[in-house]
Amino acid sequence: MRNFKLTLEYDGAQFCGWQSQKNGERTVQGELEAVLLKIFKKPVKVIASGRTDSGVHALGQVANFKADTRMKPLEVQKALNALLPFDVVVTAVKEVKDDFHAQYSVEEKTYRYTILNRNCRSVFLRDRVYYYPHTLSVIRMRQAAKAFVGRHDFKSFQAYDPLRADRDTVRTIKRLTVKKEGDLIHIEVTANGFLYKMVRNIVGTLLAVGSAKLKVVEVAKILKAKDRTKAPQTAPAQGLCLMVVKY
Amino acid sequence: MRNFKLTLEYDGAQFCGWQSQKNGERTVQGELEAVLLKIFKKPVKVIASGRTDSGVHALGQVANFKADTRMKPLEVQKALNALLPFDVVVTAVKEVKDDFHAQYSVEEKTYRYTILNRNCRSVFLRDRVYYYPHTLSVIRMRQAAKAFVGRHDFKSFQAYDPLRADRDTVRTIKRLTVKKEGDLIHIEVTANGFLYKMVRNIVGTLLAVGSAKLKVVEVAKILKAKDRTKAPQTAPAQGLCLMVVKY
Repeated sequence: MRNFKLTLEYDGAQFCGWQSQKNGERTVQGELEAVLLKIFKKPVKVIASGRTDSGVHALGQVANFKADTRMKPLEVQKALNALLPFDVVVTAVKEVKDDFHAQYSVEEKTYRYTILNRNCRSVFLRDRVYYYPHTLSVIRMRQAAKAFVGRHDFKSFQAYDPLRADRDTVRTIKRLTVKKEGDLIHIEVTANGFLYKMVRNIVGTLLAVGSAKLKVVEVAKILKAKDRTKAPQTAPAQGLCLMVVKY
Repeated sequence: MRNFKLTLEYDGAQFCGWQSQKNGERTVQGELEAVLLKIFKKPVKVIASGRTDSGVHALGQVANFKADTRMKPLEVQKALNALLPFDVVVTAVKEVKDDFHAQYSVEEKTYRYTILNRNCRSVFLRDRVYYYPHTLSVIRMRQAAKAFVGRHDFKSFQAYDPLRADRDTVRTIKRLTVKKEGDLIHIEVTANGFLYKMVRNIVGTLLAVGSAKLKVVEVAKILKAKDRTKAPQTAPAQGLCLMVVKY
């Protein structure tokens, strides 16, 4: 069996996230596995670096699958892209060693959350950004961002996940930047791993600080509380995009 | 009557261009006038800087309309955006002098044509770029671009338009740049005016030169021929976007 590593772009707007579901909802994994079944004439399981939620996008999701084939990586890419729907595309295929596992081998991941901060929506970035028309202080958001960087217990920023209720909640955020680019505010977070809805919960807190609903000093206190109910609400899914997975 | 100047963004993918049509096809002008009728309770005619074709986008289309109202420009903007569909938005409204005419007062316009030059399509830029997977030389395209700059008779780059068959075909291109940004090639053209499909015809020629189907020196000859049949084919609509209109 050969092991293929895929790099994927997908527009999350019309997907119920990455992971195949029993109720038959449309997922990225489901679309990929359906196409691989057509190509290889047998079921192939695709493993991603991690799940992405409904509505979340990817520019650099990574996945792997094993198959018995003589196809070259470029041929695999062409075959996949010819059959995949308009909202998912394979940007690269590489043959990797047998022990490469898209989830377990992850070293770090980078997510980007984009806020559109102007007085009207965008036609081109609809479903791609969170449209927030009120005043935001990027300076306050940057001050608050500092509290998250480093090794912390992020329990206050984890959404309840019944399947992983007893999981360790310590993670290391290596970088967290807040950049302004015209009407857009990009929040980029790089960590060794993320808890369920962790980026969107951090963004929700940064939005509360940026809109002066929360003091900058409160952020460190919320982190220390290790209690989800202390943190502001989760930011909507459509602004989130998985940018890079490093191995 | 007060005169309002609008700046508009629209995603051309689901529009049959700007101009209202008798056959009832969906147009930007049609959507705007339908919404203005709701707001002002009487028919309002909207004048744009110029028509855009089916599939062509705008980030900075300008239009004006006259109405008897006490509404402030910001109120007009909010009212329009509350009623307009997802693929058109008013980014600015300004009250202007009575003699401002969105079409006749134009000083210059800038269009951008974007080519996606990589080995796979893009999920986020579908309908926004022309996906061209073959080798292109940006250096050759820049060399060819020089021939277009200045005051010329662009008859070879005008699509046949029965309504304007005897129109003067001399225009002045002030700038024409070819920029590479990752996998994207942006061709930006600024002129005092454009003939029917002129940008897409120029881009078609630049693509022919970039892909080595046409020699750089041929471009000046095609221009001099004043004959549409001498120039390569028109580039597809979806890569084109009206960026700025200057008055």
